[in-house]
Amino acid sequence: MAIAMEQVMIILCVLFALAFFASTIFKRFGIPGLIGEILIGIFVANLVLGEWSFLEFLHIERPIPGVPGSGNENWDIIEVIAELGVIFLLFVVGLETKVKDLTSVGRTALLVAVLGVVIPFVAGYALIMAWDGNVYHAMFMGAAMVATSVGITAHVIKDMKMMNKVESRIIIGAAVIDDIIGLIVLAVVAGVAMTGEVDYINVTEMTIIAVMFVVILLIFCAKAVPRIASAISGSNEKKKAKGTGRRSSIDIFVVAIAVCLLLSALASQMKLAMIVGAFLAGMIFADHAHETGLTKKMESLTAFLLPFFFVYVGLHIDLSSFTASLLLLAVVVIILAFVTKYVGCGLGAMLGGKGKASPNIVGIGMVPRGEVGIIVATIGIGIMVAGDPAMTSDLFAVVVLMSVVTTLIAPFLLSSAFKKKYGKDEYKIDETK
Amino acid sequence: MAIAMEQVMIILCVLFALAFFASTIFKRFGIPGLIGEILIGIFVANLVLGEWSFLEFLHIERPIPGVPGSGNENWDIIEVIAELGVIFLLFVVGLETKVKDLTSVGRTALLVAVLGVVIPFVAGYALIMAWDGNVYHAMFMGAAMVATSVGITAHVIKDMKMMNKVESRIIIGAAVIDDIIGLIVLAVVAGVAMTGEVDYINVTEMTIIAVMFVVILLIFCAKAVPRIASAISGSNEKKKAKGTGRRSSIDIFVVAIAVCLLLSALASQMKLAMIVGAFLAGMIFADHAHETGLTKKMESLTAFLLPFFFVYVGLHIDLSSFTASLLLLAVVVIILAFVTKYVGCGLGAMLGGKGKASPNIVGIGMVPRGEVGIIVATIGIGIMVAGDPAMTSDLFAVVVLMSVVTTLIAPFLLSSAFKKKYGKDEYKIDETK
Repeated sequence: MAIAMEQVMIILCVLFALAFFASTIFKRFGIPGLIGEILIGIFVANLVLGEWSFLEFLHIERPIPGVPGSGNENWDIIEVIAELGVIFLLFVVGLETKVKDLTSVGRTALLVAVLGVVIPFVAGYALIMAWDGNVYHAMFMGAAMVATSVGITAHVIKDMKMMNKVESRIIIGAAVIDDIIGLIVLAVVAGVAMTGEVDYINVTEMTIIAVMFVVILLIFCAKAVPRIASAISGSNEKKKAKGTGRRSSIDIFVVAIAVCLLLSALASQMKLAMIVGAFLAGMIFADHAHETGLTKKMESLTAFLLPFFFVYVGLHIDLSSFTASLLLLAVVVIILAFVTKYVGCGLGAMLGGKGKASPNIVGIGMVPRGEVGIIVATIGIGIMVAGDPAMTSDLFAVVVLMSVVTTLIAPFLLSSAFKKKYGKDEYKIDETK
Repeated sequence: MAIAMEQVMIILCVLFALAFFASTIFKRFGIPGLIGEILIGIFVANLVLGEWSFLEFLHIERPIPGVPGSGNENWDIIEVIAELGVIFLLFVVGLETKVKDLTSVGRTALLVAVLGVVIPFVAGYALIMAWDGNVYHAMFMGAAMVATSVGITAHVIKDMKMMNKVESRIIIGAAVIDDIIGLIVLAVVAGVAMTGEVDYINVTEMTIIAVMFVVILLIFCAKAVPRIASAISGSNEKKKAKGTGRRSSIDIFVVAIAVCLLLSALASQMKLAMIVGAFLAGMIFADHAHETGLTKKMESLTAFLLPFFFVYVGLHIDLSSFTASLLLLAVVVIILAFVTKYVGCGLGAMLGGKGKASPNIVGIGMVPRGEVGIIVATIGIGIMVAGDPAMTSDLFAVVVLMSVVTTLIAPFLLSSAFKKKYGKDEYKIDETK
């Protein structure tokens, strides 16, 4: 064996166990587990007792931003597992997104999404241009502030059994559109950063490629997928009748994994983010996700892989980098992230003409950035522009803090806003989830 | 990013898709899918068209046996994913193994297991000592021939709804004991190979460590686990009553993953094979595997990871190494593997005193080596003894062929033997599996 598998196993075991420990404790206090997992990453990356360092103990060598070839193989293995985790997570988010969700909520959701993208992006961009004047840093901060976590938003609404409320439909619809716009924004920003200059022809090209990739796959979802699905279930029925079929549901799961890997690799080849491909791969299977048990099976996969992503995120943070001025920036970013999303989406809900919908609920519901903001920053830190990463580790630390704080506070505010409008009696935690 | 994630994604996508394609076709013809996956590995590793080579196209560099540091990072990533796959597979096999299965079948199962270990080991050892006189090669060939694949055996019996027959209980019980003895044999053989000489004190020490590790964990399974399980389910009941609990089944799954990683790493630290730890970790959860949905969730995990193991196995094979004399050896090994297991286990069933049990069925049922034989050879090829691997790539190719052929023929013979004794009417494929 070329690598020390025993060492890899110890790393995976320690990181997974610590992540599980932290997320269990956090969940017990009603806090999303991913926050605990990120904190574990920060803990492992920063624990130094005299000569002893946790990272050295685990034989993990962190790459130095801007130094190619730095970092060791153990770090790369964590990265691959982490990336697979986030790819399957975005696949699951795609599974929760049906094409009709994108169309039925209509004008209001679109307005909420667009205003919820434009205002945070402009605010984030302007702030960082004022902070260090670097256009790449500014773009990535803007893109990170655009993100809305469909998973977390939907999870809170489902837990509260508020799925049938008008605000919930707007939030989910807008979050879906927002996610796609956000992914296009990310593709554009990443493409611009990789070419090294603001090339408007390139931006247009990137946008056309991104839109075409998404639109072709959406048309594929709407037109071809139902036929393929009925053909498969038809052939399964035939096989059952003939007595030769078995494990057909496992096969759909394996097909889903293959398609997810394929579209992620394809997106990556088209200079799009891999998660764009994974998300669209999920949408292909959305119509039949629950009846075939696909969602549960994919969740089993992410239960193993995803904690490594959040730990991996935390591993990037160097606490010693938080100077007083950076902490000040972080506070400003968090306030801006909250206010711009709340105002932008609330305004969208108001202007959208759905008089019954509370702009307050819609605004709060769109606030959590969750993993998506961190993914954007992770991509930024991985892109080198003239020898420097498109996102500094300082700003990365700020984005992670922003994502964690917005994800932390939104569920509390959202549940109290729902309770205020729809009364305490209707509010119930769904025990079966 | 230190590594090219796009390249890694293309590798994973291509290997997974090809493996899926091959296993689907093979399953359609009633052949276990893993055989197709191994063949895909062999195909990828050996396809050269003039200047173009499939391995080079995928940027995979195979390590040269005996040359430390050979092979590239992409190979190592496949190895880690493959090893995780086989670890979770052995966990699932452990899940199917309850402590009472090891005790209730009693004397017959023990006799079948012991004779089914001793005779193939001696035959394999003697054959290779006669072939090249290398004691390590001989030991690993013996250990590879000892293996019985509980998973494949149990899978066939379950498919045929023969679980309640006396032969089935003996086969499962014996296969379980055989697995543990085989794992101890492997630990002993691997330990001896790693220390570089036949050190009888070391063998005794290894055996004591192996037995203690297994026995302590078995006692833990029998005594402590039921209490912990009832405490957990009790606290879940309480949480449900208080209205604060959620996702308790996901938590048990995550605990299972953590324990699996922990015991694999621990076993590895004690110079035992990682799969020994994974198998025992599975047994810890065996009593509650089905009611908590643990088996299905772990199967979702292996559905993604395990194909890479079988492809990885195939990737090792260099077809150009099959000279006429090696092919002759392979044929002899296959015949010996079949005959020694059949005779050893059949003899055990006869001497065991269960007059009703057909030695023919028991003998055939124990023949498939499946993944376990290949795992043994993989471990052998990874251990360096004075600069040479403890298992040559030639003998590795022979073991893979032996595992594939015994796994290929046993299900056919087993089903016809069952049909012969219990009549055609009782024979039915279980459609729900």
